[in-house]
Amino acid sequence: MTVLEVNSGDTAWILTSAALVLLMTPGLALFYGGMVRAKTVLNMMMMSFGALCLIAVTWVLYGYSIAFGNDVGGGLLGNPFEYLGLHGLMADTGDSLPVMAFVGFQAVFAIITVALISGAIADRAKFGTWMIFALIWSTIVYFPVAHWVFDFTVTDDAGKVLHAGGWIANSLKAVDFAGGTAVHINAGAAGLALALVLGKRIGWRRDPMRPHNLPLVMLGAGLLWFGWFGFNAGSALQAGNSAAVVWVNTLTATGAAALGWLLVERIRDKHATSLGAASGVVAGLVAITPSCSAVSPIGAILLGAIAGVLCALAVGLKYKLGFDDSLDVVGVHLVGGLWGTIAVGFFATKAAPAQVAGLFYGGGFDQLWRQVVGAVSVLVFSFVLTYVIATILNKTIGFRVSEDTERSGVDEIEHAESAYDLANLGGGLRAFSTGPAPSRPPEDDNSGSSKSHDQEVTA
Amino acid sequence: MTVLEVNSGDTAWILTSAALVLLMTPGLALFYGGMVRAKTVLNMMMMSFGALCLIAVTWVLYGYSIAFGNDVGGGLLGNPFEYLGLHGLMADTGDSLPVMAFVGFQAVFAIITVALISGAIADRAKFGTWMIFALIWSTIVYFPVAHWVFDFTVTDDAGKVLHAGGWIANSLKAVDFAGGTAVHINAGAAGLALALVLGKRIGWRRDPMRPHNLPLVMLGAGLLWFGWFGFNAGSALQAGNSAAVVWVNTLTATGAAALGWLLVERIRDKHATSLGAASGVVAGLVAITPSCSAVSPIGAILLGAIAGVLCALAVGLKYKLGFDDSLDVVGVHLVGGLWGTIAVGFFATKAAPAQVAGLFYGGGFDQLWRQVVGAVSVLVFSFVLTYVIATILNKTIGFRVSEDTERSGVDEIEHAESAYDLANLGGGLRAFSTGPAPSRPPEDDNSGSSKSHDQEVTA
Amino acid sequence: MTVLEVNSGDTAWILTSAALVLLMTPGLALFYGGMVRAKTVLNMMMMSFGALCLIAVTWVLYGYSIAFGNDVGGGLLGNPFEYLGLHGLMADTGDSLPVMAFVGFQAVFAIITVALISGAIADRAKFGTWMIFALIWSTIVYFPVAHWVFDFTVTDDAGKVLHAGGWIANSLKAVDFAGGTAVHINAGAAGLALALVLGKRIGWRRDPMRPHNLPLVMLGAGLLWFGWFGFNAGSALQAGNSAAVVWVNTLTATGAAALGWLLVERIRDKHATSLGAASGVVAGLVAITPSCSAVSPIGAILLGAIAGVLCALAVGLKYKLGFDDSLDVVGVHLVGGLWGTIAVGFFATKAAPAQVAGLFYGGGFDQLWRQVVGAVSVLVFSFVLTYVIATILNKTIGFRVSEDTERSGVDEIEHAESAYDLANLGGGLRAFSTGPAPSRPPEDDNSGSSKSHDQEVTA
Repeated sequence: MTVLEVNSGDTAWILTSAALVLLMTPGLALFYGGMVRAKTVLNMMMMSFGALCLIAVTWVLYGYSIAFGNDVGGGLLGNPFEYLGLHGLMADTGDSLPVMAFVGFQAVFAIITVALISGAIADRAKFGTWMIFALIWSTIVYFPVAHWVFDFTVTDDAGKVLHAGGWIANSLKAVDFAGGTAVHINAGAAGLALALVLGKRIGWRRDPMRPHNLPLVMLGAGLLWFGWFGFNAGSALQAGNSAAVVWVNTLTATGAAALGWLLVERIRDKHATSLGAASGVVAGLVAITPSCSAVSPIGAILLGAIAGVLCALAVGLKYKLGFDDSLDVVGVHLVGGLWGTIAVGFFATKAAPAQVAGLFYGGGFDQLWRQVVGAVSVLVFSFVLTYVIATILNKTIGFRVSEDTERSGVDEIEHAESAYDLANLGGGLRAFSTGPAPSRPPEDDNSGSSKSHDQEVTA
Repeated sequence: MTVLEVNSGDTAWILTSAALVLLMTPGLALFYGGMVRAKTVLNMMMMSFGALCLIAVTWVLYGYSIAFGNDVGGGLLGNPFEYLGLHGLMADTGDSLPVMAFVGFQAVFAIITVALISGAIADRAKFGTWMIFALIWSTIVYFPVAHWVFDFTVTDDAGKVLHAGGWIANSLKAVDFAGGTAVHINAGAAGLALALVLGKRIGWRRDPMRPHNLPLVMLGAGLLWFGWFGFNAGSALQAGNSAAVVWVNTLTATGAAALGWLLVERIRDKHATSLGAASGVVAGLVAITPSCSAVSPIGAILLGAIAGVLCALAVGLKYKLGFDDSLDVVGVHLVGGLWGTIAVGFFATKAAPAQVAGLFYGGGFDQLWRQVVGAVSVLVFSFVLTYVIATILNKTIGFRVSEDTERSGVDEIEHAESAYDLANLGGGLRAFSTGPAPSRPPEDDNSGSSKSHDQEVTA
Repeated sequence: MTVLEVNSGDTAWILTSAALVLLMTPGLALFYGGMVRAKTVLNMMMMSFGALCLIAVTWVLYGYSIAFGNDVGGGLLGNPFEYLGLHGLMADTGDSLPVMAFVGFQAVFAIITVALISGAIADRAKFGTWMIFALIWSTIVYFPVAHWVFDFTVTDDAGKVLHAGGWIANSLKAVDFAGGTAVHINAGAAGLALALVLGKRIGWRRDPMRPHNLPLVMLGAGLLWFGWFGFNAGSALQAGNSAAVVWVNTLTATGAAALGWLLVERIRDKHATSLGAASGVVAGLVAITPSCSAVSPIGAILLGAIAGVLCALAVGLKYKLGFDDSLDVVGVHLVGGLWGTIAVGFFATKAAPAQVAGLFYGGGFDQLWRQVVGAVSVLVFSFVLTYVIATILNKTIGFRVSEDTERSGVDEIEHAESAYDLANLGGGLRAFSTGPAPSRPPEDDNSGSSKSHDQEVTA
């Protein structure tokens, strides 16, 4: 009889990876927040933080059970009652990886997927409605799709099914290592639907709407890349060779994608931009997500470079097709997710951990059609349901802020806050005063909306 | 004979956790720094960085020995000479977890505790005095209290005491998994004492003193949350089931707390703010710190939600009671720490890793009184000693900056720096000039305190 | 027969460490970016991100093979064809640590070394030329030097050489645990050469060129410190006692260095600055990098404190000697790297994991001269080759931007971007308007370079 024992190395890696993925959502908040105008950055960041806090609770209450409960039929849905409130999962069963480590790791996947969507509706969403949307969307879109893609069937040695999982992972057998379908296509399609329902921002295509803080965007991209090693290499659920291969692929595909994006900019616009570098990084990370276990490092470079070029071209589509996907959730996550998922069908090699062969590596079309079916299924499911949810919310409680609020900036009206208050800087911003620079903090410190200290003295 | 061997998985987890907790102090510096005015952000951040650098040295010199040396009597203090300079701790003894990993992990706890206090005295502390305070406070308050709470007695199979630890951990047997008493109540009580000794800022309650950079605050909260997984789940000192349960509790309690805080804001003020979200996150993290090993995920949600509501209400107390706890060290860390510590007496369940039952789970009052005694003891000890230390420092070398310095902003006078210099931005801040926007960098680049490039040409 | 098996704990630690080191490059981008003026921050950050993306690809293509391929003679170079495209390294060989984990860990070392150099040429480099420089420099300087320092010879039990490594690690036997020579002296010497070839910035020594965003600098320093635990303690390649000792040394030396730097400032300038704290942190991290495995914690404190004092004094040298090493790559990385590497010859103790004795610990001069030879060799090699590469690039395609571009700020001309756009903030920056502050977002939102929403309405 084998004595079951925890594998402390695997557990350390998954707990670490889960923390890394947790950090991705604040990272995303910065990435998105830096891209919008200064008067809406808080609303943008709050959509990420709101999703983070909300799903952290609902995942425990019933989300994990819908995603990873025993299948209730057809591979469509886990039993929502099996692990209600994570009932029974605290006990130390001696599993190699404690189930609670897996619960935590998957929780942060659910969180970031919801947060990703918010990029499509920058500058114009009611925070309260967003939170209700996040609640409904995660419940009826994400949790089931996570079951489809991430819940693997478990059988004993005799082939008896101990746990029945989802249809994409087990029946279709599409390869989606870390969530090209469940996370990126899912969020990208939802973003497209939301952008269509909420409509364009006032002044869209005419006003520049430039990023207000590009260092924040780059910091966000850096944190996302950092966290993504947990996302991808953690998905091996073991600290071994697979995780190591995935780690290297996640590094190199991402570098190649950013170079690809910058090359497009350089050729087309004569300038490589920091926004392009940050976007290229994310595009590469998205594309390597489903494929990181299936391709060689050389395959990862090719796949990544193509992702960078493809997404750099794709983000222009919204102007041609006329939808305001403000921060390019479609151009980066939907397009990058589709490319990465389908590319498995081309670039997969038997030498890689997933041991699947794609079209270019002698595998014929077998894997390719599975990838396409998986990708399209999630796309259609997510788009249709999201469109319905968002339309209902918009027609009932309203999803979009008033025109007045949008002009003033949602931060002040929705959150009663303003991101920056640099009025009291003393000497540092002296240069903005129009008169001669005084040697001591100038009197016009006194201007602005805040009462100054001098008032206290004279009061 | 058993061959002793390091457990590489546990070691990996504790080294990782220690790094995560290290990051919390820069995270705290941003969290606090973003909340103060632009003219004092550097002084605010320097108090965290100063504590970080100082305690990193004193912990090695004698701090670890006071906290984890063999008890010198009554569970009050470790032998300060036993591990002076970490003497003898470098050898590879084959322990499952190398003692130096534990030394590093505990070092960052000492650091963050000291840094936390600084939030109570924003905008008005002399940096030099702060450093001396940090030196004294850590030595006579934190290191002993860490001994009380974190130093567990070790006995051999025959019951012989190999190492004698502190009174709260071993005699009182209060549950404080990761430092609700030693870290949060301790820092919170010290913050209250400091705020009373230093007094209110000029213009307090009249001037708005709005956060100057809320994205920094949110980034800080995100880094704190990220690092806190090391703080709490690392405190298991193993990568196993306990750490995994703690990880999930740390996620879900925090989410619930932020939702609770935002709900209070929404009902009371009609607006959910980003400052509220960030503060709610920290309140939840504080409350789950002592209790994360003792409650179920459902218990964690309840405990967290109550913490969020409680702290959201508590931060208003300072205005009623009239003390300027500038960044709510009392309202968040003292109140949240008290709640989290005492809540163990209510919510603890035998099914959780700590295997203790609270009042609501059939445990009667036994655990509850232990929790209360532990919490109150640390509160009183810390408050009294801090009040004495701060008073002496204030009456001798002075703790508070001059009125002139405070009005000008401590950054310029104390540190000869200004946080931001946006005067040379070229086109990006053109909008601030009062005239028409020129197509090239405007001449008024030339204004301000810095000499411009043009001067060189004409010079 | 022994069954080979992966050590999941070691693997978890190295994958985690690799992710930590990855984060150092975005951290460096912030550290450097915050120190330059607001009109050049993006160019500064792009040099780090560009190096990151480029080396992520070339490392896979041929870099790893040059650094860690079988030696082709003299310990100077690995066989560039052996692991071309990481050929053959994906297979699960059952090694204790999967080779791909090592590949990833070393990749991020190559990346950060290149990125470090960019600090010497702030505000004046063409981004395209920088990228070509990074490509060439990494290929003919870094990859060989990494072979010298990091590639250890492997023999079987009979002493037969299975893999031949580099000369510094195996013939000279200098101790350089994590890259004092290969990373810091290497980057520092290259920075000096670049600064000389590109020349001084317009207005250097006359204009203040103050850091535009010190909170970013401190955040960068915090992320660097955090990541550096992976850099140093990960270099143990195991999660055991060595890694733990290194972790503690990395903490305490860094703290001591920052205190040392601040003390110099306090005595010399009367003020401890945040820039000094951040710089002291980095100086300490640099100095402890080669020595972290060889010294005791007390040795680390001494070594670190001296590093802080030394570098604080060294950064002034550029003004005396007249080279514009803009962000002190020489003063911090070259000087700190030399000190840390040579200090091993003084402070090394047999009790530490490296088991080497320095002059002060009874080891005589044996280790000292090895350290000096290693340090000087890398310095000379790097300086000469970099000078040649940079001169050729500067005389052909040009390395330095035009005078016009430099005056305007490289961000706008090189990248067609501006880091900050705070023009649309609404109420938050009201204080800058010269008229009375209106209660609603003011009309002068309409000023500036961006079209405003109002224009759409009237259009």
